[in-house]
Amino acid sequence: MDEFDLIRRYFSRDAEAGAAIVGVGDDGAVLRPTPGTHQVQVTDTLVEAVHFPANVAARDIGYRSVAVNLSDIAAMGGRPRWMTLALTLWDKDEEWVEAFAAGLYEAAAEHGVALVGGDTTQGDSVVVTVHVSGEVDEGAAILRSGAKPGDTVFVTGTIGDAAAGLELFREGIVDDDLVRRFLRPVARIATGLQLVKKANAAIDVSDGLVADLSKLLGASGVGAMIDIEKVPLSTALLARFDIDSARRFALTGGDDYELCFTAPAAAVAGVEGITAIGTVTENRGLVCRDAGEIVEVDDRGYRHFT
Amino acid sequence: MDEFDLIRRYFSRDAEAGAAIVGVGDDGAVLRPTPGTHQVQVTDTLVEAVHFPANVAARDIGYRSVAVNLSDIAAMGGRPRWMTLALTLWDKDEEWVEAFAAGLYEAAAEHGVALVGGDTTQGDSVVVTVHVSGEVDEGAAILRSGAKPGDTVFVTGTIGDAAAGLELFREGIVDDDLVRRFLRPVARIATGLQLVKKANAAIDVSDGLVADLSKLLGASGVGAMIDIEKVPLSTALLARFDIDSARRFALTGGDDYELCFTAPAAAVAGVEGITAIGTVTENRGLVCRDAGEIVEVDDRGYRHFT
Repeated sequence: MDEFDLIRRYFSRDAEAGAAIVGVGDDGAVLRPTPGTHQVQVTDTLVEAVHFPANVAARDIGYRSVAVNLSDIAAMGGRPRWMTLALTLWDKDEEWVEAFAAGLYEAAAEHGVALVGGDTTQGDSVVVTVHVSGEVDEGAAILRSGAKPGDTVFVTGTIGDAAAGLELFREGIVDDDLVRRFLRPVARIATGLQLVKKANAAIDVSDGLVADLSKLLGASGVGAMIDIEKVPLSTALLARFDIDSARRFALTGGDDYELCFTAPAAAVAGVEGITAIGTVTENRGLVCRDAGEIVEVDDRGYRHFT
Repeated sequence: MDEFDLIRRYFSRDAEAGAAIVGVGDDGAVLRPTPGTHQVQVTDTLVEAVHFPANVAARDIGYRSVAVNLSDIAAMGGRPRWMTLALTLWDKDEEWVEAFAAGLYEAAAEHGVALVGGDTTQGDSVVVTVHVSGEVDEGAAILRSGAKPGDTVFVTGTIGDAAAGLELFREGIVDDDLVRRFLRPVARIATGLQLVKKANAAIDVSDGLVADLSKLLGASGVGAMIDIEKVPLSTALLARFDIDSARRFALTGGDDYELCFTAPAAAVAGVEGITAIGTVTENRGLVCRDAGEIVEVDDRGYRHFT
């Protein structure tokens, strides 16, 4: 099956009516931006054995490759509209491609995103790059750089599940809620849209809560104090792991694709599914507290200063 | 050097004033489309050892990865504006990344394109995916599907040089005009813009003239008759190879990134650097003639019917 056949067969479902003037099949896509909006563009690559174990199902890889990009759109407060796919394959048969495409379209359909172009190539390993274009009203994008001293620090959902799920998956466990949190991240598009003109800064949690919040704080030129006992942990996580392990996953684990944002508490009082975990400070740097005592956090977890 | 350092050091030159509201460094880029335009989006991947030999210089890889995408924009009649980079590296040092970035920015600067986002990952081989966004006036995009019987078939520049250059490069020849045609393709942006509202259909020559023209004809539901002795060959090509080899490179070689388009001859009378090579016909399929006699073209070249 050559590239042309592959694209035609699996990646050229009709773009939704009106979403694209020209989609897959020409030199490029032609898209009609909504008047009065700015474009938000994001791109993210998944590499086999780096971003996911080699034995992850093709359908999950397809889903995940879209979801992680949608998560970036969510963190900007954007509405996703179009995506392109660059797929480098190695040693994969048609069945794999079909399942991959099914997962990709599943994630896209949840948010009305149309696949408008792509490129399939042969390489030494599986490399999936998705590029998503979305829209925000002019001046409405939520940046990393807007956090203000006095803002409350919030997260959506529960944190740490995906990292725990990845560990379980590596142990051979597949049918588990935590594993599904890793394989099928939920992009917080609806919450992101609700945060427009309310949140001062936002980022999605991909590398770990401490790492990603630190990036946001650095971009904003501020700091924060968070209470690690306030970081929301799922009952699934606490059922499987002791509290220290659960917190290690939550603080340093990554792959959750929840949003971490800062806002005046009153501004987001009506937003559901969010938890306050701390406060933005003028002093730069992120300080973590456990029951009021300052602790040090690194990749191995957190510990009290001695 | 971690990913964050890498991006900050080599891929965060300031986006040109006005080109991007937010560029590299946030969850995504925020871009201001020109009112009254449609977006044109293209993406293309280069894989080491598949799309270029492993010993191609990093600077040339960077340049080429942008140029092949700009060529797709040119084939749509678009003005390129923004790009993102997804770079998967294997076994490359900082010097390689610096040289790659220099070539990438060199190609981008020639057309005023700003790098607004990206993702750098570690993998088993070098995979470079560039995504370019451009603009066309509403309704002005040149598609593959608009060719009409009676149109003249044109190409820009000379054809076959890049394929010949690749063959020379593989033999160890580096300092040669033909090799440069392979390493440093010229995206025909200016010509593409001149063809808007004049050409009925266009494609860029990446897979080979016969293959790409056939795609255009198929998309348009028409055919064409071309005279292979009219296909423009460079003096550099004819100085190195006999006429049969030169024509084989031109018809089947690929990698030229010239434009092939169809238009009423009178409509493009003022456009420079183009050569008429045939005529669009109602009968589907591409017919090639040599001195008036129909010949058969395949990967090995062309031959007269017996």
